[in-house]
Amino acid sequence: MSIHTSINQQWKTQVLERFLEILKAPYGDFQAIWNFANAINDVESLKQTVELLLQHPTAKYAFQNRLVLESVDLEQLHTLGQGTLGYAYSNHMKTNNLKPIKQPVIENDYTYLMFHLTETHDIWHVVTGSDTSMAGETKLQSFVAAQLFTSRFSFAMLAKNLLKTAVEDLELAPLLMDSLATGWVMGKQAQPLFGIQWNKLWDTQVAELQLQWNILSLN
Amino acid sequence: MSIHTSINQQWKTQVLERFLEILKAPYGDFQAIWNFANAINDVESLKQTVELLLQHPTAKYAFQNRLVLESVDLEQLHTLGQGTLGYAYSNHMKTNNLKPIKQPVIENDYTYLMFHLTETHDIWHVVTGSDTSMAGETKLQSFVAAQLFTSRFSFAMLAKNLLKTAVEDLELAPLLMDSLATGWVMGKQAQPLFGIQWNKLWDTQVAELQLQWNILSLN
Repeated sequence: MSIHTSINQQWKTQVLERFLEILKAPYGDFQAIWNFANAINDVESLKQTVELLLQHPTAKYAFQNRLVLESVDLEQLHTLGQGTLGYAYSNHMKTNNLKPIKQPVIENDYTYLMFHLTETHDIWHVVTGSDTSMAGETKLQSFVAAQLFTSRFSFAMLAKNLLKTAVEDLELAPLLMDSLATGWVMGKQAQPLFGIQWNKLWDTQVAELQLQWNILSLN
Repeated sequence: MSIHTSINQQWKTQVLERFLEILKAPYGDFQAIWNFANAINDVESLKQTVELLLQHPTAKYAFQNRLVLESVDLEQLHTLGQGTLGYAYSNHMKTNNLKPIKQPVIENDYTYLMFHLTETHDIWHVVTGSDTSMAGETKLQSFVAAQLFTSRFSFAMLAKNLLKTAVEDLELAPLLMDSLATGWVMGKQAQPLFGIQWNKLWDTQVAELQLQWNILSLN
């Protein structure tokens, strides 16, 4: 066995171990998700994802300038008109008892990729019209998979949800498949959302953003 | 821990063991597929599937009479006109070096369910326009999942394909997702195909059958 094959085997073994771990964890167990992401996201596929994203001007500009949301004041956003991105986002965060995440040190394009995706995850929830139920998370995960195109993590998380449902919640499996199919088609049809400066769009109507970025509501 | 919980845990453990086994096996390893099907198909979900199918007259009649294809003469079918079901089916079988399977003893509705699905699997390939590539098999598996609606096995096989692709063949993952979404939508739109007496339809054009059973070509 060559060294390369051996490393590859070790990687696969670890990925499967982490997969079983996340399969057994309750939905939304961030530690298990984080461990799994770290296990499955190899540099090669992350590089592919970054390169694909860099082909789009919005994403390229974001990478070059390492754009982040900066300070987000949920209370202030909640005073904006109903239907605006700011109001809808703050409402989503409050309803789900969520807080904007803290910015880590961004060392390279891969850390930026992961941070930007994590930081804007709940904005994507809002603009894709996905709630935080298992079906909503799956629809969004599938949308993300279509947008990133080479994210091992996104595809594997979908596989995890599907298997978990088949074994533990069979009656939800058809709904999960609907969400998976819908998110995939929506994600392919929409413009690439990576790198959008959402913090300049709080005042804009969500419906207008959906029209602008071709985020079609399919469910 | 109650006896029920303990049995449930044992079942889950075995399902996951078999899942890892099939994940590591090459595509189309029938022994691994068979082991996995036996592990994951519990009586309760099979019962649900049978009950759902019995709501449709075609399936009900097939269950009541335990209809099978009977002897299939591929050579004779190959003499039928191009575009007929018989020609297309025999061509598919020959091209893929496949032979009709032998009929086992059919003891009950569950054995009939599994045998009929296995026996007509390649006819479903033909009428859904799915080839035997990984993408084609996934499209058909997703179509079957939509038609059976409560088949743990179908959903879990899709999860297996998705995870296997994410880990081993990342560049194929988008195609797999396309197939999965397409098969699901097609399977929901089509009339229930379970129990159709295909052996009375060898002379009929495939296109006519697709129209009759609302099998829309979406790829």
